[in-house]
Amino acid sequence: METNGVKVKANLSDGVNNQEIETPNNITIKGILGLLMANVETTEDEDEENGGNFKKNKRKKKVISLGMGDPTAYSCFHSPDVAQNAVLETLASHKFNGYSPTVGLPQTRRAIADYLSRDLPEKLCADDVYVTAGCTQAIEIALSILARPGANILLPRPGFPIYALCAAFRHIEVRYFDLVPDKGWEVDLNAVEALADRNTIGIVVINPGNPCGNVYSYQHLQEIAETAKKLRTIVIADEVYGHLAFGAKPFVSMGVFGAIAPVLTLGSLSKRWLVPGWRLGWLVTNDPNGTFKNPKFVERIKKYCDICGGPATFIQPLMLKAAVPRIIQQTEEFFFRKTINLLKWTADICCEKIKEIPCISCPHKPEGSMAVMVKLNLSLLTDISDDIDFCFKLAKEESVILLPGLAVGLKNWIRITFAADPPSLEEALGRLKSFCQRHSYQENAHC
Amino acid sequence: METNGVKVKANLSDGVNNQEIETPNNITIKGILGLLMANVETTEDEDEENGGNFKKNKRKKKVISLGMGDPTAYSCFHSPDVAQNAVLETLASHKFNGYSPTVGLPQTRRAIADYLSRDLPEKLCADDVYVTAGCTQAIEIALSILARPGANILLPRPGFPIYALCAAFRHIEVRYFDLVPDKGWEVDLNAVEALADRNTIGIVVINPGNPCGNVYSYQHLQEIAETAKKLRTIVIADEVYGHLAFGAKPFVSMGVFGAIAPVLTLGSLSKRWLVPGWRLGWLVTNDPNGTFKNPKFVERIKKYCDICGGPATFIQPLMLKAAVPRIIQQTEEFFFRKTINLLKWTADICCEKIKEIPCISCPHKPEGSMAVMVKLNLSLLTDISDDIDFCFKLAKEESVILLPGLAVGLKNWIRITFAADPPSLEEALGRLKSFCQRHSYQENAHC
Repeated sequence: METNGVKVKANLSDGVNNQEIETPNNITIKGILGLLMANVETTEDEDEENGGNFKKNKRKKKVISLGMGDPTAYSCFHSPDVAQNAVLETLASHKFNGYSPTVGLPQTRRAIADYLSRDLPEKLCADDVYVTAGCTQAIEIALSILARPGANILLPRPGFPIYALCAAFRHIEVRYFDLVPDKGWEVDLNAVEALADRNTIGIVVINPGNPCGNVYSYQHLQEIAETAKKLRTIVIADEVYGHLAFGAKPFVSMGVFGAIAPVLTLGSLSKRWLVPGWRLGWLVTNDPNGTFKNPKFVERIKKYCDICGGPATFIQPLMLKAAVPRIIQQTEEFFFRKTINLLKWTADICCEKIKEIPCISCPHKPEGSMAVMVKLNLSLLTDISDDIDFCFKLAKEESVILLPGLAVGLKNWIRITFAADPPSLEEALGRLKSFCQRHSYQENAHC
Repeated sequence: METNGVKVKANLSDGVNNQEIETPNNITIKGILGLLMANVETTEDEDEENGGNFKKNKRKKKVISLGMGDPTAYSCFHSPDVAQNAVLETLASHKFNGYSPTVGLPQTRRAIADYLSRDLPEKLCADDVYVTAGCTQAIEIALSILARPGANILLPRPGFPIYALCAAFRHIEVRYFDLVPDKGWEVDLNAVEALADRNTIGIVVINPGNPCGNVYSYQHLQEIAETAKKLRTIVIADEVYGHLAFGAKPFVSMGVFGAIAPVLTLGSLSKRWLVPGWRLGWLVTNDPNGTFKNPKFVERIKKYCDICGGPATFIQPLMLKAAVPRIIQQTEEFFFRKTINLLKWTADICCEKIKEIPCISCPHKPEGSMAVMVKLNLSLLTDISDDIDFCFKLAKEESVILLPGLAVGLKNWIRITFAADPPSLEEALGRLKSFCQRHSYQENAHC
């Protein structure tokens, strides 16, 4: 039996090792943050094993992660009570334990349509909305339904790596266009035009921007839509950070330009409501000309939703609350304003602290979302080879987790998430400064 | 602008209509049940529009659906309070609103491993478990990570159509083997051997069975594992109805035979805990010989989980409760026994009532799960062309929803879900009997 067991294993292993089913070798944010965190923890465990309490206490610092856009780790970013209570009530009612339609409950689809319509010139209807298990699933559905042999997709660099990973699993070729740091991380539209061809299935635009913290102007979004129209393709608008804008420019939804080029809008409750773990997102066809109303396209989305399974049923009625203007105006306005003010404050702390560190520069002050991209000047550092090396040494020495820029497409940059409580953020950036001083050439050590 | 708008539309529509991205034309259970339900509702609306209250009252019957395996529609199948309370407590703690690792929280993975290990000769570890958004997502992940060019998968007929739909989206060829009604819906192992080749990525076994309500013996499961070993492939064991066995044979997990052939076990809380809408499932590698421990395979699953996003975080600690033997023994034992007794009772009602209907026969009394397959004798019916026609006319005339067998792979059979409260079930089967009498040749009308 054992011999045969080995045979089975060999056969399967052949398959698993086979070139044909090779795993996409993309870096994922969670993957790299996990490795960084393990790097911190190993250090602590080693100390503990050595029984060296003094050594341990001396070296052990509270781990502060500015690596992931999950503000719920900090108590100042608590989900609103009204959301919590809505879910508790729904659960207690025993009415939402069963299956929902995989495209979402009808009343939830309508509620999301109403919620998003406030930002649009034309009202969305319930059928425009597909409820998803978070924005991640909305990305997966969008790319999967658009995939076809030979297809390519245009992605921003820097960007959000799930797009490239998902494209790899769906055999969609990825073509990157640059975001220009000196122009507020605007899309390099010439690059987009040069990359596109008749197999281009869409242009991905993330606004407010992750990882850059930019917010695009009405004008620039319109230019993107005009470019998509010229190229006869669509815009996939990732608005997971929708409304989290705290700079001079207001948030404008890409859907405003849906009549110029069809827009697939992706979003979720995660960021604005501070409940990323609740997995309630949406994929919305923003398309007054009705391109996406093609029955075959609608059927394809619906069937794809069937194999995905959709979000938990009892979380869905929450959107009914979100869609009621009275609640938004009275209860929620304070909550949203508080979040925005806090993000503005923490973004300011981040920029001020970064200015004190010579080997790190920030080309564009964040105006939205929860993260900023900063550039490493490696020529000022003595023993750091690149952004990966920087982040691993920082994690080990200072128990501070930052995301290497390579993970979002920009080598030797770093993404800092500033959605943290101000004291933790100041502490982490203080440690970052010490770390940089220790690893800088002498002449820079005193800055 | 409008001209250009039309151009964009034309271009995209070309793509959408293109053979290359054609939607798989599989029937889905939810799709067909939706159509059946619409058929009922249209009748009612028409009456309402006609303003004919008398006519309406005469014709309008309460809709009873025995079409989907969602028992939560009936109050006798309520989720246990302990589950409800566990989620309420988790939510109130504010500790599980953030992201979880996409493979699941470590403590949840461990809890599921402990929970499933009770049925196995060797203990599972946390790393064997991937937490998913319901069993549907576990199916999606299993097929997607095994997919490779030229691959085929062996599926049971009748079976659960999501497998075929998912395979179609992943370009996996589907090969069906029969389940044999006269042998308690056992797998036709000769057919399996004839179908398999070196590109076979797995054999799907659903036990307890959906749609047939069968429960496989230890002996038969072992034979399936031996066959998989001989064919050098794996078993994908769908145990979403695990432990819901109420006949003579106890439920045996396929994982018991993981040392013979590697087993991917798929399951969820949905059925045993009666919370299908909560979307907490698992994909588990049941494989003492370590085939699935191949680092490339593990990396592939993890990355695939990253693009899927996983289940809601706050639902996951629930598994900790499920894994505590004390709670299972004291609080839950009563709950599980109540469900089993109720299912046994409703299965009996179903079989007794079917015996009274000459044009419908049941070759094998259900011993588990929540559904049974029954055969139509069309030669006894006057104006029914097939199972689809039967179900649409039944919905329209009697407001009773049953699933046409074609949706699960058997034309001119019907799937009846008996997870309903006894009075509703009796009422629905009574209407089914009247319907059959009305549509039968005269000599059969009085049976």
